[in-house]
Amino acid sequence: MSKIVDGVFLESCPNLPSFGNNIQVEKVLLESKSDYQNVLVFSTKKHGNVLVLDGAIQCTEFDEFSYQEMITFLPLNAHGNPQKVLIVGGGDGGVAREVSKHPLVKEIVQVEIDQKVIDVSKKYLPGMAAGFDSPKLTLLVCDGFEYMKNHQNEFDVIITDSSDPVGPAENLFTESYFALLKKALKPNGVICSQGGTVWCCLDYIKKTLDGCRKHFKNVEYARCSVPTYPNGEIGFVIATDDQSLQLSKAKYVFTEKELDELRLKYYTPEVHTAAFALPNFVRQALKSSS
Amino acid sequence: MSKIVDGVFLESCPNLPSFGNNIQVEKVLLESKSDYQNVLVFSTKKHGNVLVLDGAIQCTEFDEFSYQEMITFLPLNAHGNPQKVLIVGGGDGGVAREVSKHPLVKEIVQVEIDQKVIDVSKKYLPGMAAGFDSPKLTLLVCDGFEYMKNHQNEFDVIITDSSDPVGPAENLFTESYFALLKKALKPNGVICSQGGTVWCCLDYIKKTLDGCRKHFKNVEYARCSVPTYPNGEIGFVIATDDQSLQLSKAKYVFTEKELDELRLKYYTPEVHTAAFALPNFVRQALKSSS
Repeated sequence: MSKIVDGVFLESCPNLPSFGNNIQVEKVLLESKSDYQNVLVFSTKKHGNVLVLDGAIQCTEFDEFSYQEMITFLPLNAHGNPQKVLIVGGGDGGVAREVSKHPLVKEIVQVEIDQKVIDVSKKYLPGMAAGFDSPKLTLLVCDGFEYMKNHQNEFDVIITDSSDPVGPAENLFTESYFALLKKALKPNGVICSQGGTVWCCLDYIKKTLDGCRKHFKNVEYARCSVPTYPNGEIGFVIATDDQSLQLSKAKYVFTEKELDELRLKYYTPEVHTAAFALPNFVRQALKSSS
Repeated sequence: MSKIVDGVFLESCPNLPSFGNNIQVEKVLLESKSDYQNVLVFSTKKHGNVLVLDGAIQCTEFDEFSYQEMITFLPLNAHGNPQKVLIVGGGDGGVAREVSKHPLVKEIVQVEIDQKVIDVSKKYLPGMAAGFDSPKLTLLVCDGFEYMKNHQNEFDVIITDSSDPVGPAENLFTESYFALLKKALKPNGVICSQGGTVWCCLDYIKKTLDGCRKHFKNVEYARCSVPTYPNGEIGFVIATDDQSLQLSKAKYVFTEKELDELRLKYYTPEVHTAAFALPNFVRQALKSSS
């Protein structure tokens, strides 16, 4: 279990309990429990404020940008013309912030199950919660499963920004969830979900991809660096039914001017493609069995 | 300072002391001091044996392959015809193991300053020390600076596998070191050096690259994942005087058969190219001032 000892937060990853990050706590700002999970926020000297849910670091102000930019612009730019976007989860507001930057996006719906995370982010992570101010956004506090059952054939891109598959996010990694995503998507839409870390959960990632492949014809896995996540990185499951779409290539290519204007710190068109070049042991393990 | 507390090794990175890895220790196998540095080896349940020099994890049996393969095959395959290779440092034997795999390499010279590291690796990291058994290798225990002064215009590739720029490796990051490398290289040879981590040492990396650019016309920076290094990754400075050489593209391209036969777990030709796609904040910071 993660804990604070002598002013140091020692994270314990459930999938690899013998290894994790430690980060010096300046001050505990909030220790609370929502209807769904334990919520902890603390400040640090070098990493800004840190949000922890059920013992797992969700984001630090220091490095949140890499995850937010990549889970957003990989699917949006692979799609090429993302006008209407659904965000499932993402209660800190960071993904909404990035999606709302995209010049082609006209309408964003976000469904987050836990009001507490939204409130906490508004208070302690204002740079991320800024995403909630976008005039393009409709924010709903409800269950993503229930919402999608009533909204079919509606979205160009659906991003699932969840915590790991323990606790409230457990259902967002199952085959039946991918079936729901497919129905809520327009034909040839693109999905992107948080997808775990190859260094400790390769079997789990393989199982998730296999579930996804039952509903989408074109399924890939990509990665990005996040120093304060276990093993220093995180992956994404990205999929579409459009077999002609090369997910590893940005179809909408940001110009240098756009990269500047959108204040992108991690994503570039080259980083997009590079994210899909998997280490050989990962590439071998995740090969489609078909 | 790094320390073992209640059976957990808490690493403290000198550049970012408020953040680091923690890893459960199964058994301390060696705690010693060489003429140059403090040496610690411990076993773990999930990461195999771990070598620590002056408080910094140098390698774990779990994930050493990514660093060894990348610091080796980036320069060897960018060069295209690496027949004679010099390794400076690399006392654990892992780089020698990888270099000796390359089908074009005929002769390897390795200069390591600390006999103790070689002995410790032979005893506790046999999978890495296996590199010392290569019939292609001449292993010398001496100072890399001194060796290169007497060997000019001799090597196709020089790999500097050092610890961080504190302690015995301090001199391997200076401009004068790059001047020495250039003289020891054949014209159009390629160098590759351990190059720090962008998440905590970007200013330092910029300074190192600027020093390198004073002696080489074509200088790049690349990265790979190493979960047990601070921030989960490490970078490489890679350079040549051959302006026509595209360092980010493998000139010698491993076939699928070779990837299998050489038992490569991380490196592929696609991973080679992807390693040079830098996050936007890094790309901006490291731009050549010229």
